[in-house]
Amino acid sequence: MTDLAPPAATGSDTDIEHELGTLFADARRRAGDLDPHYAALWTSLAKQSSGGKRIRPQLVRMAYRGLGGTDATLATRVAVAFELLHTAFIIHDDVIDRDSVRRGDPNISARFAARAIRNGTDERTSEIWGETAAVLAGDLALSLAHRELALLPVDTKRRERLLDILDRAVFVSAAGELADVVNAGAAEPTSMPRVLSTLEQKTAVYSFECPLSAGAVLAGAPEPSIAALERFGRFIGIAFQITDDVLGVFGDPAVTGKSAASDLREGKRTALIAHAATTSEWPRIAAGLGDPALDDAEADELREALRDCGALDTAMALAEEHVTLARYELDTADLPPELTAELGAIARRAVERAR
Amino acid sequence: MTDLAPPAATGSDTDIEHELGTLFADARRRAGDLDPHYAALWTSLAKQSSGGKRIRPQLVRMAYRGLGGTDATLATRVAVAFELLHTAFIIHDDVIDRDSVRRGDPNISARFAARAIRNGTDERTSEIWGETAAVLAGDLALSLAHRELALLPVDTKRRERLLDILDRAVFVSAAGELADVVNAGAAEPTSMPRVLSTLEQKTAVYSFECPLSAGAVLAGAPEPSIAALERFGRFIGIAFQITDDVLGVFGDPAVTGKSAASDLREGKRTALIAHAATTSEWPRIAAGLGDPALDDAEADELREALRDCGALDTAMALAEEHVTLARYELDTADLPPELTAELGAIARRAVERAR
Repeated sequence: MTDLAPPAATGSDTDIEHELGTLFADARRRAGDLDPHYAALWTSLAKQSSGGKRIRPQLVRMAYRGLGGTDATLATRVAVAFELLHTAFIIHDDVIDRDSVRRGDPNISARFAARAIRNGTDERTSEIWGETAAVLAGDLALSLAHRELALLPVDTKRRERLLDILDRAVFVSAAGELADVVNAGAAEPTSMPRVLSTLEQKTAVYSFECPLSAGAVLAGAPEPSIAALERFGRFIGIAFQITDDVLGVFGDPAVTGKSAASDLREGKRTALIAHAATTSEWPRIAAGLGDPALDDAEADELREALRDCGALDTAMALAEEHVTLARYELDTADLPPELTAELGAIARRAVERAR
Repeated sequence: MTDLAPPAATGSDTDIEHELGTLFADARRRAGDLDPHYAALWTSLAKQSSGGKRIRPQLVRMAYRGLGGTDATLATRVAVAFELLHTAFIIHDDVIDRDSVRRGDPNISARFAARAIRNGTDERTSEIWGETAAVLAGDLALSLAHRELALLPVDTKRRERLLDILDRAVFVSAAGELADVVNAGAAEPTSMPRVLSTLEQKTAVYSFECPLSAGAVLAGAPEPSIAALERFGRFIGIAFQITDDVLGVFGDPAVTGKSAASDLREGKRTALIAHAATTSEWPRIAAGLGDPALDDAEADELREALRDCGALDTAMALAEEHVTLARYELDTADLPPELTAELGAIARRAVERAR
């Protein structure tokens, strides 16, 4: 099992890091002219944006290069726009979920709450600092994402098409984020179709479909190729997210970087749970699921029950089915063979991975 | 005393309402294809965006028309971008302040919390619905603001200049919002220079400077005129906000639409308070200021003390000084006489108003 990024797509990861680094350094310098706390906010934002897998930039570049694009500067800027969008979404997702940890580190709100305490505030005030910093940092990252595409030096038609893709990414992701919160707060379990449509909206569209279609549009690809990549992206995004949710419960915390009990404690509405709710094991599972005080032994029991009722097998089979659907798109589309091969490798890695 | 909008600038307020109405109706229709709750989010967003004074659109149009612009469609779109930016900021400002009322009505988070309760959720879950809806609605309004300018059918140079103005509006306002929260949480009173720089950053730049400079840039105005309008906007924005803060404490709640005690209960760091903190009345004022349980009689006493220590006179004089500075910009700039007259009227109304 390997990380998602195939070696072939990593050629200019340094371009992405360089572009992001330049953007943040420039903003931090400008912020320092206004206020030291504001400069610190940009430092936190830069830090929050680093350390991810850079999946979205890689997909942009892969589609762009695979469909004949040759301008690394343009591809990097579009790639950076989608990474910034991702940064904005995870920051505001943490505000909504009141999380204080991201990728094992304190997130922006935790950093700013700590900064407030160092500045002598009380606990309550430090929380406000933290939440304010996170709301603003998300707004700033979102604005930068828009700005990268709005300033892209390509013809009007192409730029407008890219802006439409960004619009779709924002619009559909917001629907998914809201649906996720609605699902989590409902008394009854979330049905499998609703789980799948929520993760398609919340993750697959902005993380897979849109980066791929943006890369294809930037390369001037023919419409059928763009449409095939969009469908491929949605299917593979769903496969990817189902796998993520499986790893969240059954993965190795040392590899995934998140506690294997946190999704269970939170009662996250995943494909695992949607299946479990239709089985006779449900009362046993429902009793512990969503209990914030769940201990490791109880989490092990839940895991056992999810295995016994077929939820693990069902979720993994569902992820595989979506990989099959995605590969079908590749096989029937008229794409350059190298791109088909690269995307095929991505498709496999969506389900065959440890983190 | 009249409202801020001079009759001459209101000619195409209906264009603004029409454009905003079309944008929201289109989004709501698209949202309805995804989820009824999401459609309701757009309904709340449309509602939240209505009912304001439309100051920013009027400033865009005034500068544009006053400097020779003749394309009402372009002006309307730029005006709408700044109104959407304002909508985004007030929505996220309410998230940061945990407010549930805006302009006397329940805001988005209050509406969505109520919607959650109607859907059978518990109190805690309804709060999460409310906060989620507000975070997302702000992101959506912010994205629409960027999109309006990014798609503007003008030459590249002009569009990029407008995008730079939008970037400045977002960048500086975020600094101001953060500074406001830092001030509010500090143990010691905020100094007058810090109060003034915070309100310049938080309000004057995005609400006055940027709409005026955007209108001027769109009209293709000469650089010295643009620069004069920017400075005028900052001065007048400061005068406007000082007056707002005075009205927040000394205004008629029936006219201002907000409780005359809420700023005192909240302990808002205004020019009034910055002055009071330098006087011998301070211990008497500090004792009650920021007490959420302040009753009407105690609020009256605080008002009396703020009058006695000269805070009211000082704040009003400071607002007048900024009007004078703003008028000086008008008098020394080479602007068309009609625009100078219109802006002069705005300048007077910034301080001579009841709401």
